[in-house]
Amino acid sequence: MELFEALRNRRSIRKYADRPVPDELLEQVLEAARCAPSWANVQPWRFVVVTDPETRRALAETLPSNNPGKGAILGAPVLLAACGVKQTSGYYKGKVTTTLGDWLMFDLALALGQLTLAAHALGLGTLHVGLYDIERASAVLGLPADVQLVELVPMGYPDQTPNSPPRKPLAEIVHRGKWGSPYSKTIPA
Amino acid sequence: MELFEALRNRRSIRKYADRPVPDELLEQVLEAARCAPSWANVQPWRFVVVTDPETRRALAETLPSNNPGKGAILGAPVLLAACGVKQTSGYYKGKVTTTLGDWLMFDLALALGQLTLAAHALGLGTLHVGLYDIERASAVLGLPADVQLVELVPMGYPDQTPNSPPRKPLAEIVHRGKWGSPYSKTIPA
Repeated sequence: MELFEALRNRRSIRKYADRPVPDELLEQVLEAARCAPSWANVQPWRFVVVTDPETRRALAETLPSNNPGKGAILGAPVLLAACGVKQTSGYYKGKVTTTLGDWLMFDLALALGQLTLAAHALGLGTLHVGLYDIERASAVLGLPADVQLVELVPMGYPDQTPNSPPRKPLAEIVHRGKWGSPYSKTIPA
Repeated sequence: MELFEALRNRRSIRKYADRPVPDELLEQVLEAARCAPSWANVQPWRFVVVTDPETRRALAETLPSNNPGKGAILGAPVLLAACGVKQTSGYYKGKVTTTLGDWLMFDLALALGQLTLAAHALGLGTLHVGLYDIERASAVLGLPADVQLVELVPMGYPDQTPNSPPRKPLAEIVHRGKWGSPYSKTIPA
């Protein structure tokens, strides 16, 4: 799939077909995450691939009952638990280097961005689930103390074709030169 | 460009040709960031596009003197300052919703991941610069208090073709079912 097509047309998928994901595709999706850039190439990301229904159900229980991500986790054949090793991104010799602290959230998103685009190009849907009881889900997965769970990402064949949610126009999110200077006037007519 | 080719071959570029970036390409790169997903679609990202040499020099001065990102910022014709509106991603009605606090770093990385891939597909190079004096750089750009500067991203035509830094093998970053269970044995021979 062409890159710009993937960037524009990837959607959040909340309804999945009852159809397993072949291991070859799962591997391609994980490979896409693996080659993401990261702080000083520390590659803080770790993934737990969950396919057994009992663990998926236990993880779905950590979401608020009214959250549509819950049905997505129950319905998708694969759940990727995306974690990061703490105090590596943004650190040098064990010491934090910026006022933004741990950059693991940043690096995890770089990997998950690549992962979700790759899934889309292979005909698979995904969903970013960030609102759930992280402590309970970490216990279900048996995570060690130095590993931070960030997102639960259900993945499978889509059973819906959602519309694109609206995006702010460029003029609202881009400034030129300094904050407050409009961007649009610099684009040639 | 094909998606997987872009994911595999994008590199961090630290040396740039003395050649301006056409506004049409700049706009395509910003469009790629604009269509990224974000927490409840809040789209916290804001960009300041800096092209004038004086401001680029002032921003380069906020990096440690031995950081190769400094030369990249001085050499690239465009600098994108990537910022996020605080307390929107991961928040609901002004209240934080997860133990991970503000998700702006996560959402900024989703947008910057799309932006850097798009740049690569258009023949442009970029670099993630996260190590600099954020407070001083924010003052140079005139950022308001509710806007967090995250990265400085130089962009231009590459004047180098770096090798790919090594990545950890999948067996080191992926577990199956629970933390500690190997992933590799589940992949068919």
